[in-house]
Amino acid sequence: MNQQDLTVRGFQFAAVKSGIRGKDRLDLGLIYCSKQAEAAAVFTTNQVKAAPVLLGLERIAAGQARAVMINAGIANACTGALGLSNARASAAMVARELAVPEALVYVASTGVIGAQLEMNCFAHVTELVAGLGPEKIMEVARAMMTTDTVPKVASRQLVIDGVPVKLVGIAKGAGMIMPNMATMLSFVMTDARVSSHLLAQLLRASVEQSFNRITIDGDTSTNDTVMLLASGEAGHRRLERVEDEAAAELQKALDDLTRDLALQIVVDGEGATKLVTIAIKGARSAQEAEAAARTIANSPLVKTAFFGQDANWGRIIAALGRSGAQFDQGKVAISFDEAAIVANGLWLGSAAEKEASAVLQKKSFLVTVDLQAGSASCQIHTCDLSLDYVKINADYRS
Amino acid sequence: MNQQDLTVRGFQFAAVKSGIRGKDRLDLGLIYCSKQAEAAAVFTTNQVKAAPVLLGLERIAAGQARAVMINAGIANACTGALGLSNARASAAMVARELAVPEALVYVASTGVIGAQLEMNCFAHVTELVAGLGPEKIMEVARAMMTTDTVPKVASRQLVIDGVPVKLVGIAKGAGMIMPNMATMLSFVMTDARVSSHLLAQLLRASVEQSFNRITIDGDTSTNDTVMLLASGEAGHRRLERVEDEAAAELQKALDDLTRDLALQIVVDGEGATKLVTIAIKGARSAQEAEAAARTIANSPLVKTAFFGQDANWGRIIAALGRSGAQFDQGKVAISFDEAAIVANGLWLGSAAEKEASAVLQKKSFLVTVDLQAGSASCQIHTCDLSLDYVKINADYRS
Repeated sequence: MNQQDLTVRGFQFAAVKSGIRGKDRLDLGLIYCSKQAEAAAVFTTNQVKAAPVLLGLERIAAGQARAVMINAGIANACTGALGLSNARASAAMVARELAVPEALVYVASTGVIGAQLEMNCFAHVTELVAGLGPEKIMEVARAMMTTDTVPKVASRQLVIDGVPVKLVGIAKGAGMIMPNMATMLSFVMTDARVSSHLLAQLLRASVEQSFNRITIDGDTSTNDTVMLLASGEAGHRRLERVEDEAAAELQKALDDLTRDLALQIVVDGEGATKLVTIAIKGARSAQEAEAAARTIANSPLVKTAFFGQDANWGRIIAALGRSGAQFDQGKVAISFDEAAIVANGLWLGSAAEKEASAVLQKKSFLVTVDLQAGSASCQIHTCDLSLDYVKINADYRS
Repeated sequence: MNQQDLTVRGFQFAAVKSGIRGKDRLDLGLIYCSKQAEAAAVFTTNQVKAAPVLLGLERIAAGQARAVMINAGIANACTGALGLSNARASAAMVARELAVPEALVYVASTGVIGAQLEMNCFAHVTELVAGLGPEKIMEVARAMMTTDTVPKVASRQLVIDGVPVKLVGIAKGAGMIMPNMATMLSFVMTDARVSSHLLAQLLRASVEQSFNRITIDGDTSTNDTVMLLASGEAGHRRLERVEDEAAAELQKALDDLTRDLALQIVVDGEGATKLVTIAIKGARSAQEAEAAARTIANSPLVKTAFFGQDANWGRIIAALGRSGAQFDQGKVAISFDEAAIVANGLWLGSAAEKEASAVLQKKSFLVTVDLQAGSASCQIHTCDLSLDYVKINADYRS
């Protein structure tokens, strides 16, 4: 993937071909914390929660972790009591093999909803644990891919109290990505020394400005999980309060890393050919700015126009009009990157349109909508709706 | 289209090729009320309203009409003061040619947002009026088509006080169809004798259970208009109150007719290959039932699965989980027509799936989701999301 060093002190990784998702692909990954790590997690807001999410919610309360096992192929969602007991049993197998407490092992799943895990696939846990090594994070990133076309990884470094600190994160996304995360898994490991309470605060804030600001198709999933694990191996003084300047530095690095992963997910959205950022300015409130940005970012008509490379501002303004945001249609301004196409609610003419159309040819661009109704703003990252999105989702059982 | 008699006493129709939408197609239609008709209308709820909608809102308050002119090709939306003055001017030309008061002439437009009407096209108004005749309603239905593939028409008959009464309606739809109507135009003519006040009540109730219960892609437009015109030529006593038994009969016939037109719109949705009715049962409240039905009906993942003929109940349950409706996931039941696929939140196995898959092969089917959380229900009609939807909307500037 890249030449950077993706190791992070205190963590080892492994992945195997277990057979859960087809025959010959990595589909079972393991993150192992050599010592007990502080842990925080954010899970799906979907009311229907998969078994691994239910187990995670139960275990994360203690803020500690030793291992996370991730499988692709079967989501273990809508699987009832059997699904939950299978999730527990698979975690117990990992705990036994690693000789760590069961309560410190997490599981995460992505794939088909409704099918039960085939428990014999977990016979590979022995092989998985035997294969652990500090340099195998990319294998875990690959093992959790479903319709993703590339593994997603990012790392950041900072200095706390003169000590170098590192963050390394992996993610999977592709379809069903939306506001409150969806068939989206991400795990961030750091050697920073931080209390689990502070970790939880940092993670919540970071997710809000990264994974919760992207959308592929407006759908959310039953399995979304973002975990942040801190080994403390960097050895600086333990950070406990958000007010701490070093905590702010760590937040900045984490935000940067999660935004990086989030944008990688949009770029690799199912069938996506464009990365488009919708920026609302001049809204009356943050809520209205977000509603406007999300409505535009999820509109199938807007997204197919992006795919068609058509600077179709009419569809943008129509989406805006049903978003719930209040504005005077005679004041709205719209531009694609630097090319203004609408001012005071009116089309700026064919020369302006020609410039805007040129922007639409790009792989990535910004759509700015100024409502001139207030001072609130919001950005949402989205992709286009392509023929391949339909092909992928008409064929793939997820 | 069909052999039925589509005339209705008191109304004449005409359409011409004006050049607004390409060279050689009907794109300007006229509905003429031989005497002054009682009138009611429902317009888009989109905050961005096209010029003809603004004019219609102003004129409908009086509840009277003599003519409606409809053009396809240009929506006259987001066109500012010039757009509104063009709408007025085109209505004035019709009024002059017909020698009726300007305030009794309505206009409706559908097509590209942002472009101004080319007023020289309205030179064809003379020819339009000259061509009026009682049997030309299908030409008007054709003239207002944009991406529609077929004209949409329906008629109903009933008897009031021993007198035969008739309703004939036309509609256009295709893309951008959603809850509160979108690039959707419909005009219903009747010879019933009804006060405009009662007409407005009948129309509102009827739209609620027909056009507001369909969705193609979740987008709504700036131009939606449904008008109901009553000539009174049937000659029965004038109906004025909803409590009147005859009013209830008329409501029934109108409901039946508007549902017919609404379903024609879904069947002809852009790229649609399936007509799917989502029925929610057992919700805690009507609001939650509607939220659940609409979220499923608008989910791109659910709709691409319908296109792929995949009985993908996992995506249905995931959409349900983010709809805001409250339920116990261990109680949910889902079926496709008569084939149950989920009970108590769990998959019923591969035999059940096989039966459900057979249903998905059909052109039209019902998806029933029983939440078992209360007694409220809601039905929404939708279509699938096909490759052609993307092709049409990536290519067409609307």
